[in-house]
Amino acid sequence: VAQGGDLEQLTSGAVDVVTEPELAERLANGRPLRVKLGIDPTASDIHLGFAVVLWKLRQFQDLGHTAVLILGDFTAQVGDPSGRSATRPRLTRDEVDAHAATYVEQIQQILSPERLEVRRNSEWLGTMGIEDVLRLSARTTVARMLERDDFDTRYSSGTPISVMEFLYPLLQGWDSVMVQADVELGGTDQLWNLLLARQLQQQEGQAPQVALTAPLLVGLDGEQKMSKSLGNYVGIAEPPAEQFGKLMSIPDDRMPEYYRYATGPVGEAPAFDADRPAVESKRALARAVVDRYHGAGAGEAAEAEFDRVFKSHDSPSDVPEHDVQSLADQADGDGRVRVSSLLVATGLASSGKDGKRLIEQGGVRRDGEPIADVDATVSLAELPGTTWQAGKRRWARFR
Amino acid sequence: VAQGGDLEQLTSGAVDVVTEPELAERLANGRPLRVKLGIDPTASDIHLGFAVVLWKLRQFQDLGHTAVLILGDFTAQVGDPSGRSATRPRLTRDEVDAHAATYVEQIQQILSPERLEVRRNSEWLGTMGIEDVLRLSARTTVARMLERDDFDTRYSSGTPISVMEFLYPLLQGWDSVMVQADVELGGTDQLWNLLLARQLQQQEGQAPQVALTAPLLVGLDGEQKMSKSLGNYVGIAEPPAEQFGKLMSIPDDRMPEYYRYATGPVGEAPAFDADRPAVESKRALARAVVDRYHGAGAGEAAEAEFDRVFKSHDSPSDVPEHDVQSLADQADGDGRVRVSSLLVATGLASSGKDGKRLIEQGGVRRDGEPIADVDATVSLAELPGTTWQAGKRRWARFR
Repeated sequence: VAQGGDLEQLTSGAVDVVTEPELAERLANGRPLRVKLGIDPTASDIHLGFAVVLWKLRQFQDLGHTAVLILGDFTAQVGDPSGRSATRPRLTRDEVDAHAATYVEQIQQILSPERLEVRRNSEWLGTMGIEDVLRLSARTTVARMLERDDFDTRYSSGTPISVMEFLYPLLQGWDSVMVQADVELGGTDQLWNLLLARQLQQQEGQAPQVALTAPLLVGLDGEQKMSKSLGNYVGIAEPPAEQFGKLMSIPDDRMPEYYRYATGPVGEAPAFDADRPAVESKRALARAVVDRYHGAGAGEAAEAEFDRVFKSHDSPSDVPEHDVQSLADQADGDGRVRVSSLLVATGLASSGKDGKRLIEQGGVRRDGEPIADVDATVSLAELPGTTWQAGKRRWARFR
Repeated sequence: VAQGGDLEQLTSGAVDVVTEPELAERLANGRPLRVKLGIDPTASDIHLGFAVVLWKLRQFQDLGHTAVLILGDFTAQVGDPSGRSATRPRLTRDEVDAHAATYVEQIQQILSPERLEVRRNSEWLGTMGIEDVLRLSARTTVARMLERDDFDTRYSSGTPISVMEFLYPLLQGWDSVMVQADVELGGTDQLWNLLLARQLQQQEGQAPQVALTAPLLVGLDGEQKMSKSLGNYVGIAEPPAEQFGKLMSIPDDRMPEYYRYATGPVGEAPAFDADRPAVESKRALARAVVDRYHGAGAGEAAEAEFDRVFKSHDSPSDVPEHDVQSLADQADGDGRVRVSSLLVATGLASSGKDGKRLIEQGGVRRDGEPIADVDATVSLAELPGTTWQAGKRRWARFR
């Protein structure tokens, strides 16, 4: 492949490339590049937003470069004891391991197993002593830290920033030094961190990595970036029907970017036709995503299922089944349980409160009949064979 | 001694006591208190400014409490690799040891050897791992750090603050946790640090230390605080003549505070009489300080020496003697050396440049005769028996 073509392909769809001449020079060099991508193991689902950079990473792999995935296990295990950073819960070793396993499994849907290096940053951060941390912390200034958009916003608005949060970007940057990254990928919100890593590499006598950012895909709400914590995401490992249904809920005006970034590698996206009816475009988009992650034809099947459920109000064909006995210990003396408890036990509601809210909104049905009373109860004896629905897409059936 | 009297004595001359009721309560408790004072081992001279808190510490000792001196050896050995903090040079283990030995020797002039605990903070800081540092750094916020006066000033004026500098106050505060300090003493510029330590102790379930600050003695320039780095200080171990001469140079309007704080423990200070001629008051002050650190009568002797030198322009009686041979390798083919080199070799000037400046200012004399030419040379052969003077108080004689 000609170098000029590589450069064009690798930078297509990117927002920032710092700097493009540096990237061109390294590509011309001929040596396989080490392309870093950091993964936060505090969540376990890979969603379409994160997939944007993963597909970009895959492009590098396809051109003979090495994908270096950094699992931030060390920082996840420290967390933020001040509780000031919502994105820094503290995880146990087991939780990190579980998330890591899930990630590695899901990543195979996008990355090639060849030219793939998965590293955990505990490997080098875990052995640092206080002097190493102090010296690293001397590498940059408070003023530079406060130039980062989110810190600036929080500081200006009086929202607490723990001093620890100033150390995390330095540790993340140190990862680049340790794996000798040639390129680092990230969403546009990572640009500042990626540039800090460049500085650390230069101070260590390394050529600074090229920072390449991809756009942040907006979530299903059409407003905020897609993220696990906001619950506005589509996971790449979610079942076809779930993916299809969720994608049908995005606002019409977000379709062009979903076409471009959510359907796979930039450049292979189906064309978005603004003259086509919106619902048709959205169905085609949803089919394309489902096909991408579940194989050709899976999109059409999910669409048929979607139509059967939403048009006929029939229950879908693959409703999860539950055993009545699983509710036995929640029954009162008369063998009755509250509907709100039933919703929690079957996973249709996240809490009793959530269940009551669903009932109040008229979103809970038993065999198609809405439940009107938030305090309604039902006898265990009459449950077998009943089908329960919460909202549009959650179902349960009792054996 | 009655507790009320103790409280009054201990808080006399203090600027901040946070809080006085807490101090009263601990004194009433009857248990000997642990009174912390941190020492920065990056300098080795104890000056009259630092002596103010040492005398306060002595008062605690005299009332049966324990002085806990913390030698900041760990932080001194890390220093500030960014070079952004002028007060944080990096020292070797040997340098720290040398300073520590000098300190401990000088401190005996003020503190009692009983009820004295000297600790090095490397004992607990040196073994901290990265997780400990991260957790500690999560204990406070960036906003709180920027409330510290000097950080606020530097941040506002665009003067760089390294992120490391945010960690040092936390480490200093951790010292209080580790030695379970009941009270910490410091200059008023330490108040913020002392209060941060209170917070850390509370988070660790300890009763927070009482922060007690003493005023910062102004330096000989009458403007800035007395400090080693500004060169405006009188060391408690300096020779009597040096102390006397330096003290005679303080501005008249600073005398009241020197009377109150520079002559020993607050409460034992000689009274300052505003109606007395200023020069008389200053002589009495200088005598009192010399007596305090060199024994009764030493002040009068220093005064007599001072008068002999300054009134008669004779050389003083204890001029340091030098060997002509020490200049041999600086001589030219004719056996002559530059006067500026001679000044450096005898310690009368800090550099050749400094020596030339002194000559230019007419401050250099050979046997009382001013040297006019900055490039003047002198033959080694004629040196024995000559006396050299630079400025008012520096002398050298050749054997």
